[in-house]
Amino acid sequence: MDTEVSAAKTLEAHILEHIPLARAMQLAVPSYRGDELEMTAPLAPNSNDKGCAFGGSMASLLTLAGWGLIELGLRAQGLACDIYVGDSQIRYREPVWGELRGRARFNEPGALDALVAAVRVRGKGRVDVTCDIEGQLGAAATLTARFVAKRRQ
Amino acid sequence: MDTEVSAAKTLEAHILEHIPLARAMQLAVPSYRGDELEMTAPLAPNSNDKGCAFGGSMASLLTLAGWGLIELGLRAQGLACDIYVGDSQIRYREPVWGELRGRARFNEPGALDALVAAVRVRGKGRVDVTCDIEGQLGAAATLTARFVAKRRQ
Repeated sequence: MDTEVSAAKTLEAHILEHIPLARAMQLAVPSYRGDELEMTAPLAPNSNDKGCAFGGSMASLLTLAGWGLIELGLRAQGLACDIYVGDSQIRYREPVWGELRGRARFNEPGALDALVAAVRVRGKGRVDVTCDIEGQLGAAATLTARFVAKRRQ
Repeated sequence: MDTEVSAAKTLEAHILEHIPLARAMQLAVPSYRGDELEMTAPLAPNSNDKGCAFGGSMASLLTLAGWGLIELGLRAQGLACDIYVGDSQIRYREPVWGELRGRARFNEPGALDALVAAVRVRGKGRVDVTCDIEGQLGAAATLTARFVAKRRQ
């Protein structure tokens, strides 16, 4: 458990140091527990001209949450990989008028184990992730995305 | 022609004033000509931890370029609307190592005329847009998205 808290903090620091837009968004990683990663951002730096959350901020948070879930899962197995987003779909259902709170999960049980095995055997693998941003009635926005992980030489 | 140059400048100023993330991205609208809108951003504020363009920056630029194309098209017809992105798909084909240069176009010829008619008659309408970010060999990333426009009361 402590390892996962520490992993979330390390990921947050890495993102804020190396991705200027994440800094501008004031992203945070409040929790991680292996099969789920939570990422948040305050509304003010992520608002649009209507005063609700900017679609680009939602897309950025959702994509980074998915990336982070995979990064931490692979790192916990001792694997250092470059992870790229391939295809992604976002459905925007309702505007978000407060803090952006996203949760990323693997689409299938055992997906991380399969990815770890693929990276160990072939040096790369693919995995599908779903991320939601909380809304009033359910998910305000949902991303489904395929990521590719390649082991660093 | 002058009207379109002026419209691009007005849109750029509006985005930079009202969307903090657009300011952080240093977005610009270098050209607009009715059926195509160009939006750019320098790499430095939009880079990731690998030094190429951050996927969230690409998603933000593509989404805003589509939004701007519709906003300017409706405004040229005297229609003030709130425009929301509904569903969107992004395919990321290759990393971008320089300036982000995106182009938004309507998917179908006559799409803007159909949207204008729908907004005039029913107060709202939908339209599909495609946006590309330039790559070495073709489009480095492509967004296809459905937007909804609702006339302001």
